[in-house]
Amino acid sequence: MLRFLLPLTLLAGLARAASPSLMPLPVKMDAAAGKFAIDQNFKVSSAGCSDARVAAAVARFLSRLSRQTGIPGWNRGAEGAGVSLTLVCAAGETPSPTLEEDESYRLAIDPAHALLEAGRMAGILHGLETFLQLIQPGPEGFQIPAVHIQDRPRFPWRGLMLDVSRHWMPVEVVERNLDAMAAVKLNVFHWHLSDDQGFRAESKLFPRLQQLGSDGNFFTQEEIRRVVAYARDRGIRVVPEFDIPGHTTSWFPGYPELASAPGPYEIGRHFGVFDAAMDPSREATYTFLDAFIGEMAQLFPDPYFHIGGDEVNGKQWNQSVRVQEFAHEHGLEGTLAIQTYFNQRIQKILLKHGKIMIGWDEVLGPDLPAGTVIQSWRGQKSLADAARQGYRGILSSGYYLDHLKPARYHYGVDPQGGPAADLDPAQASRILGGEACMWSELIDAETVDSRIWPRAAAIAERLWSPREVTDAEDMYARLEVASRLLEWTGVEHRAVHGPMLDRLAGNHPAEALRVLADACEALGLGNGRRGGNYTTQTPLNRMVDALPPESESVRATERAAARILASRPPGPLDVAQLRQQFGRWAANDERFQPVAAENALLAELRPLSKDLALLGAAGLRVLGYLESGQAAPEDWIAGQTRECARIERPTAEVSLAAVRPVKLLLEELARRSRKPGNR
Amino acid sequence: MLRFLLPLTLLAGLARAASPSLMPLPVKMDAAAGKFAIDQNFKVSSAGCSDARVAAAVARFLSRLSRQTGIPGWNRGAEGAGVSLTLVCAAGETPSPTLEEDESYRLAIDPAHALLEAGRMAGILHGLETFLQLIQPGPEGFQIPAVHIQDRPRFPWRGLMLDVSRHWMPVEVVERNLDAMAAVKLNVFHWHLSDDQGFRAESKLFPRLQQLGSDGNFFTQEEIRRVVAYARDRGIRVVPEFDIPGHTTSWFPGYPELASAPGPYEIGRHFGVFDAAMDPSREATYTFLDAFIGEMAQLFPDPYFHIGGDEVNGKQWNQSVRVQEFAHEHGLEGTLAIQTYFNQRIQKILLKHGKIMIGWDEVLGPDLPAGTVIQSWRGQKSLADAARQGYRGILSSGYYLDHLKPARYHYGVDPQGGPAADLDPAQASRILGGEACMWSELIDAETVDSRIWPRAAAIAERLWSPREVTDAEDMYARLEVASRLLEWTGVEHRAVHGPMLDRLAGNHPAEALRVLADACEALGLGNGRRGGNYTTQTPLNRMVDALPPESESVRATERAAARILASRPPGPLDVAQLRQQFGRWAANDERFQPVAAENALLAELRPLSKDLALLGAAGLRVLGYLESGQAAPEDWIAGQTRECARIERPTAEVSLAAVRPVKLLLEELARRSRKPGNR
Repeated sequence: MLRFLLPLTLLAGLARAASPSLMPLPVKMDAAAGKFAIDQNFKVSSAGCSDARVAAAVARFLSRLSRQTGIPGWNRGAEGAGVSLTLVCAAGETPSPTLEEDESYRLAIDPAHALLEAGRMAGILHGLETFLQLIQPGPEGFQIPAVHIQDRPRFPWRGLMLDVSRHWMPVEVVERNLDAMAAVKLNVFHWHLSDDQGFRAESKLFPRLQQLGSDGNFFTQEEIRRVVAYARDRGIRVVPEFDIPGHTTSWFPGYPELASAPGPYEIGRHFGVFDAAMDPSREATYTFLDAFIGEMAQLFPDPYFHIGGDEVNGKQWNQSVRVQEFAHEHGLEGTLAIQTYFNQRIQKILLKHGKIMIGWDEVLGPDLPAGTVIQSWRGQKSLADAARQGYRGILSSGYYLDHLKPARYHYGVDPQGGPAADLDPAQASRILGGEACMWSELIDAETVDSRIWPRAAAIAERLWSPREVTDAEDMYARLEVASRLLEWTGVEHRAVHGPMLDRLAGNHPAEALRVLADACEALGLGNGRRGGNYTTQTPLNRMVDALPPESESVRATERAAARILASRPPGPLDVAQLRQQFGRWAANDERFQPVAAENALLAELRPLSKDLALLGAAGLRVLGYLESGQAAPEDWIAGQTRECARIERPTAEVSLAAVRPVKLLLEELARRSRKPGNR
Repeated sequence: MLRFLLPLTLLAGLARAASPSLMPLPVKMDAAAGKFAIDQNFKVSSAGCSDARVAAAVARFLSRLSRQTGIPGWNRGAEGAGVSLTLVCAAGETPSPTLEEDESYRLAIDPAHALLEAGRMAGILHGLETFLQLIQPGPEGFQIPAVHIQDRPRFPWRGLMLDVSRHWMPVEVVERNLDAMAAVKLNVFHWHLSDDQGFRAESKLFPRLQQLGSDGNFFTQEEIRRVVAYARDRGIRVVPEFDIPGHTTSWFPGYPELASAPGPYEIGRHFGVFDAAMDPSREATYTFLDAFIGEMAQLFPDPYFHIGGDEVNGKQWNQSVRVQEFAHEHGLEGTLAIQTYFNQRIQKILLKHGKIMIGWDEVLGPDLPAGTVIQSWRGQKSLADAARQGYRGILSSGYYLDHLKPARYHYGVDPQGGPAADLDPAQASRILGGEACMWSELIDAETVDSRIWPRAAAIAERLWSPREVTDAEDMYARLEVASRLLEWTGVEHRAVHGPMLDRLAGNHPAEALRVLADACEALGLGNGRRGGNYTTQTPLNRMVDALPPESESVRATERAAARILASRPPGPLDVAQLRQQFGRWAANDERFQPVAAENALLAELRPLSKDLALLGAAGLRVLGYLESGQAAPEDWIAGQTRECARIERPTAEVSLAAVRPVKLLLEELARRSRKPGNR
């Protein structure tokens, strides 16, 4: 443990100041006098740190520093005289990060020197990321305002789940997302390796799993080892998930004898809950899984092993005479009882291979062994129930990134909130944290970064920072900075939009499309977009795929609109900004329509573009009324209000976010117009 | 050779139509009826092509097609029934591309089927790139308008030289640029591997070359082989350059005995012409080079081997008693004579190792062996002189990308133009083509793509397409499309700007900086930017580095301005576009200044931003006069004209390109105002 105590106080005023902008916010941050310059003389000393991973971490840190500042020359490292940042590590490290890791660190940045101190490598890694986030251009070049930080996480399990089954994600995608995870202090990579639509891990014992279950897209054991090592170097645990006994269609083309109904089977191409489930009545199923889990246990050093266990609809079991006879013999009534039996068998197999079971809510049946961890996609109530029964749990309900909800929504979900708020301390401590979930039905390797980032950073802050850190406006201000910084880790969440819009526009310049795109937000699965309309082969190349789920541009417009409503007379810069934005929207349709003509991919956007023009024109007129202080005709307001309500409904799986600032202004105009003479 | 004849006729009307947009333009293109659909059923058959590289090329083609359209599922290839594109290859291939290669192809795209036919793999590769360029979104999805193309290059040597010495460029940079080269049918990668600032190739015979001459940044022999194979697969020859006897400072830290003056030596950190030169008077120099060239000859299969030979200032030779005595003994008068002696010795060594010498203008001395190829950085006159003497040559003068001149400038330079225009056919045929040169004094791995592309595509067209293809406006229209398509090859020339601007803006949103950036253009070496102000360690992270050399946005504004002047009354869409653009410029400074406050990197841009606001305001007023048909006061016009002249002068190594459209309108307003009553 660290020698100093970490008081859980948040210096809210300082922490929320525009600078420095950190995400996640640290536990304690005190401004000091002066600034620390980052120039070509900058050096790092890690002489006291024996772990070879520290040297590798410093090399990565210097390379990121070069990219982030554009200053070359650190990449060969530098030791000895003129040290600028000293790392102080405690001796001794476990070979892999663990759930019980001490992740705390202390970072003291003074004008002449910076010190990063931690008891374990995890703290050093986190402190280096904090250091990178503190750098900004100043009057003499890149610098850090002097600051003393003490920091440690609120929850020990802060994860990102990535579904590589529904759509294939190659190693590069995984690796760059591990770098981005480390940048926001996430520490568990939950690798959803099998599902109905693809079996993505190489088995040497049962090679037909990947040969017939993956369309050739799977991770070799060599690649898996590489990813695990890559994660370990970044302080990230890797928890594999092989979802059983349901979500197993892709196992069965190669091994139909595992299924509860005769085959042949094909890899799933559609999405939803499938009937296929493993046969719990055959001893051969457990023999197979024993060997398979034993093989996988060798690849994944982390003690936690995820068996999925969600969404078994029971159809195959109900229709199988054999399974029903077996259930009857064993006194198992109904699907849940059969699954509990199955889980108990699996639990014993895991135990034999030194693994602790983790599964989705549904595994919480009677007689579940004590060590099991529940991952809840249903909500805090599941976790609270489990915690009261002595089970540990992590929250994922509220953290489903594929729904494409705003960061604000995820940020408001607390693993110990809602139904879990009244647990006693011992029970509450069983809630280990949470995981952002990136299911990939409607997301592929091209778009996945833009669906994870930057929103996962808001979830990372929820899981790391003190519970009291809840100001969403402040979060957004820092999230935009974090989003830009994340680019230097290699994730392409910002870079991908331009080329995808260019592709949609074909030989035309994409400028008019970009104006429309900036006014729109993508809708997610179950949230305006239906998985049932898609297969794994459906091109994800439409506007909805190219758009981020939240528009920074609309958010800026909303902020300006809110400022205008808060001050009378409205600030001229804000009015000018809105007028320009509304003017651009109003004028854009005339330019967009020729681009969309004869273009199958843009046809669905033509009504949206017309609506944007309407919004722009309405916004200009509302602004005029507000500026002049005159009341607007009631019927005009009523008509515009109806238009806004209509426009708020999604089109082409896209929401015209531009409606929000216009509606905001219109509502205020309506209020003011009802009180004549009010100025 | 192909069975059909390729008439050198350009169907100018068709070829210049907005669609299809090809770069380089083919020799002959005939529109046909209907269109060819690109969907998930698309298949390629290359059954008749025995060369394994064709299968690899098809796999790459399908992967690019997937990226370019966002349609998945081709990456596993497909043969047999339902073939859409059939490749017809002649049998037999050389293992590597050659200068004498038949690169012609015929591509016939009809609604039901496409046929690509070529005598050699080079033609197949070129045809596949043409096919990719033809795809665009249509009313039912991605499609190609039916078209029959016959094509072949004008020149056999169409190169890109990349300097990896002044700034290090890792393998990924080289590889993605090879992909982009192939996309525009460039066929020679000239790899400038050594210079004063770095020795970048691993020698096993003389390991101190890279150990002491590269700061650790060099290509291993394994990497060199990989790059050569990568290029070969894309139909690209690799010509290595080891620049001798000058530009050799980086050889000397490891082997000072090669130099004409005693050491010790250090790697060059500044730029310019250095004094250090190899000692032509010692036999040991030739023994060393014989062994070294022998080693390198094994790595590079192409028969051409570049020995540089440029810019020997003679100082070390003049100051060396030994060299002077040697010169006297051999009757060598002056630096040029000594260098000619040196070249003759090197030429014999090259011959021994099966290589043909190529060098810069300066190697053209008396008694130069007949096979030598001259690469001219001086101009067509050198080439013409050489051609008259029987030497072959390639042009690089006029193709220096690091000067950051507009594409229009490079496009106007013809290897057989100017002083080379009056050669007889035999002499003219000795001009083999040209090479775009990417010197890297002020360019690093981050910015290099944006300095090469898209302008190198205009040079590629000059070297491929018929001589008569010279319409710069048409070129620009196609270049913008080509620039966007090039992104799918992996080059980051467009993607890099956003993150670099974000970096400059620090924690602020970069929007105001982006408006300023879109109005500016970067100046290049010797063209507003002086290499003498820089070293290899100077950060290249300023606005000038983040900007492209040409602003697409200003070009669009110029086009709108030109249209306004051409029609009375001016078109309302054009007027609206200009008014919006000018309004944005006029309003931007108020938003930019807070971003630039306390920011050392942006301080130099503050006057530029003020000037942009002036231009915006002036533009709005000029537009008002032009629209109303009223004359403007003479003194106001005079004042604005002076302001434009002042603003045209570069600031911060950047040119405020926005001045161009304003000046254009102002000049017309001045003309009209001198004729009162003119409307």
